[in-house]
Amino acid sequence: MVNVKETLGGLEWSVKVADGSSRVLTPESGPLIRRVQLGLEGLVLKVWKFFKKAWDLGVEDPKKVIHCFKVGIALTLVSLFYYMRPLYQGVGGNAMWAVMTVVVVFEYSVGATLCKCLNRVIGTCLAGALAVGVHWIASRSGDRFEPIILGTSVFILASAATFSRFIPSVKARFDYGAMIFILTFSLVSVSGYRVDKLFDMAHQRLSTIAIGTSMCILISIVVCPIWAGEDLHILITRNMEKLANSLDGCVSNYFMECASSTDDEEDFHKKLQGYKCSLNSKATEESLANLARWEPAHGNFSFRHPWKQYLKVGTLIRSCAYCIEALNGCIGSENQAPEFIKNHFSDACLRLSTHTSSTMKELAVITKTMTKSSKIGFLVGEMNNAVQHLHKSLESLPANIPPAQSPSAESSETDKSTSTSTNNNTFAVPLMELLPIVTVASLLLEIAERVESVVDAVTELASMADFKTEKAEKKLKQKQAIVNNKHDKEQHQASQEELTMKALQQV
Amino acid sequence: MVNVKETLGGLEWSVKVADGSSRVLTPESGPLIRRVQLGLEGLVLKVWKFFKKAWDLGVEDPKKVIHCFKVGIALTLVSLFYYMRPLYQGVGGNAMWAVMTVVVVFEYSVGATLCKCLNRVIGTCLAGALAVGVHWIASRSGDRFEPIILGTSVFILASAATFSRFIPSVKARFDYGAMIFILTFSLVSVSGYRVDKLFDMAHQRLSTIAIGTSMCILISIVVCPIWAGEDLHILITRNMEKLANSLDGCVSNYFMECASSTDDEEDFHKKLQGYKCSLNSKATEESLANLARWEPAHGNFSFRHPWKQYLKVGTLIRSCAYCIEALNGCIGSENQAPEFIKNHFSDACLRLSTHTSSTMKELAVITKTMTKSSKIGFLVGEMNNAVQHLHKSLESLPANIPPAQSPSAESSETDKSTSTSTNNNTFAVPLMELLPIVTVASLLLEIAERVESVVDAVTELASMADFKTEKAEKKLKQKQAIVNNKHDKEQHQASQEELTMKALQQV
Repeated sequence: MVNVKETLGGLEWSVKVADGSSRVLTPESGPLIRRVQLGLEGLVLKVWKFFKKAWDLGVEDPKKVIHCFKVGIALTLVSLFYYMRPLYQGVGGNAMWAVMTVVVVFEYSVGATLCKCLNRVIGTCLAGALAVGVHWIASRSGDRFEPIILGTSVFILASAATFSRFIPSVKARFDYGAMIFILTFSLVSVSGYRVDKLFDMAHQRLSTIAIGTSMCILISIVVCPIWAGEDLHILITRNMEKLANSLDGCVSNYFMECASSTDDEEDFHKKLQGYKCSLNSKATEESLANLARWEPAHGNFSFRHPWKQYLKVGTLIRSCAYCIEALNGCIGSENQAPEFIKNHFSDACLRLSTHTSSTMKELAVITKTMTKSSKIGFLVGEMNNAVQHLHKSLESLPANIPPAQSPSAESSETDKSTSTSTNNNTFAVPLMELLPIVTVASLLLEIAERVESVVDAVTELASMADFKTEKAEKKLKQKQAIVNNKHDKEQHQASQEELTMKALQQV
Repeated sequence: MVNVKETLGGLEWSVKVADGSSRVLTPESGPLIRRVQLGLEGLVLKVWKFFKKAWDLGVEDPKKVIHCFKVGIALTLVSLFYYMRPLYQGVGGNAMWAVMTVVVVFEYSVGATLCKCLNRVIGTCLAGALAVGVHWIASRSGDRFEPIILGTSVFILASAATFSRFIPSVKARFDYGAMIFILTFSLVSVSGYRVDKLFDMAHQRLSTIAIGTSMCILISIVVCPIWAGEDLHILITRNMEKLANSLDGCVSNYFMECASSTDDEEDFHKKLQGYKCSLNSKATEESLANLARWEPAHGNFSFRHPWKQYLKVGTLIRSCAYCIEALNGCIGSENQAPEFIKNHFSDACLRLSTHTSSTMKELAVITKTMTKSSKIGFLVGEMNNAVQHLHKSLESLPANIPPAQSPSAESSETDKSTSTSTNNNTFAVPLMELLPIVTVASLLLEIAERVESVVDAVTELASMADFKTEKAEKKLKQKQAIVNNKHDKEQHQASQEELTMKALQQV
């Protein structure tokens, strides 16, 4: 008789044997199958997670997906040089250099692509010319010395070019060019030893590289261009906004603990941690500024846009972020000020943080819209007033605290201890309890000071990059409005006339 | 008559004309020659400065120079494959792939070279196999569809591989592999359309790449290897040391302004700014940790050395550095505490900073020597005692300040104001004046807290990486000492015997 019992793990088959006892049937290959099954499941899950992540990445930043398609298009197009016979015969077997150029040179931003293209062309030409010269000398010095001269020249030039890549100014702009220089020099000088038609080869290679680079430049500029300069511009403004939000959230969270209940908890936490983006953005900012210098004028940015000033602004933003980091540490520490002291400072601190963050937000708007603001002077003034207000609160603190409220006086001996402390002229509230709040105040003051230097840097940027004034902006808008209005009126008139005509016709 | 007058700028020639007046002789081509001269001088100066910089770079870090020679050697060696006829005929025109591999793959550290080599081999094999498959399918589908199938496959795979390079986990390890995948796939599938002997070509290319990569790996490991892991190890320990020195210098500079006079001014300033190195080292640390994972066991580091833990330690060090940044800001601000308050805190703050920095220095020693320390527990204890001491100083401040010394009481109405403040139970010293010193104290406390978490992380690292215990280290040293002693004794005996023999001979 066969029984089927349901167990925790699944079904279990048991057989009643002649002697009355029952034996559980376990398939012999069970554990192995189970293990394989588990392994497969794990693998599928991992692959699924990987694709999920990739999908999220694409959804989050569609620019990246566009870039991928651009690379695909460029590579497919360049492959035409192989497919079409006439072209193939024209550039010979060297057509692979066009493919290679596209793969290696096509970068995410226009600036990076231009930088690599120019580096590749210059490096190739320079190294090619040098290699031909060395080859000419070597070929004239006899069979015995030829390999020695070639080998020595490769050794010396490769070592020197490799070393040049360590020099910061070269690394920033010509790193790729130096590599291409080494590559081309060794290839040409070495293959020149065998190939007789050196100039023919050089001509072919240069033309294929030209095809590759021009295609890359064309596609990267024409099809949904991604500008390093614009990315830097956006990064800096976003960092300003995030910093302002963090400061706001952080201080209000400390003084009004209910603040987080209004927002979604997770969102609020994210906002608080926003300043961390600028803590580690130095490398990104520097590389973007380096690439932006290669880019032609685009959008509101001229060819000689002061990208270096963005780095200065970025550094100053970072110095504010360091203070917010320290502030976050103090706020998060276990040692907290008593409620009544918090209440005393709450108003002044909140006011200062609000004014500081709105100054920062205004700076973000100025940078974002590239329009000078008349408000910024007023906001800085308000911020400085708030600084004075906080100073006053700090000065007035002891006079405002009723001794009875001090925690040391909460014991049963209230009167006694108070009178003792009064007699000794000691402070009723130990300084220890003031520590966190005073630190918060002091860091807020420091942040306000640092934000003022950001204001200066942005003002400098505005004058360097010729930001529009608000008046010009308004005039432009008014003009546009008038033009639009006229256009609307004309359209309106036209439709009116049409209607009248139709009505007349119907009559 | 010709007169030579010396003027400020140099010599001046004047001619006395018949009418008695004199004319100054100025060469007509003067300004042009002068300009060219100036231009040339400027150029020479620039070139000189550039080479000076390069020389300093080389002197500062000889490893970089060694790396350059290594690249030169590898490239010259690989060129032999062209020079020697038999080999040239063996690998055919594809020998250029060996040169190219060396140029592209040879990186500064062993880890980076290994990473690129493996990426290149895996990427080439994978893409080659796929391309041959696609080519086989395409060649079977008629002349009309062949280019379409090939083009589509290039487009899809190139786009997908490009996108994969944006995924952080792929980017960290297989960025170069993805690029090589795209390159090989397009080249093979595209050139396969023309070249009949596809397998021959694949074989040749793989063998040349194998020659290039194995030469790179060999030279980078055998000739003065530069390990990314070791670099990371050194970077972290150096950051610890610099942080400790900065903290020490910064606090002692604040409390004892004479501190800077003992050291060389510039050196002292450099020491103060040392913490800034760790502020922006995140990117370097991450890339080094990524590369270190590819490296085989070397020195004291096993193959599976916990490099990730170094990143954790680095992050915690950075969080300390943020606080020091804020501290530096507060110390540098105009608003300074009066002397007598400074004196009150001086002892406690200096004690805390000294203990904190010596804990940090001990951590640096632990990490550097990879030896567990018995002292660290004691040092942390001392640091915590110093924290308590500072707490006490903060608590006792008001009781310790004689009212007469308070600045508000420095007016002529000293007694009156003091008695008033006593009656109102207000604090004799406005809190405003305490602000900087309290902030310094609070930040020092915060730094001590953060250093404790560095201690935990380093302890974790010590257990993960099986750091030696001091006992084992001592035993090892003792053994060595005994061996050395024995050796010395033997040598001594031998020389004594020799002397005796000589003496006997002389007798």
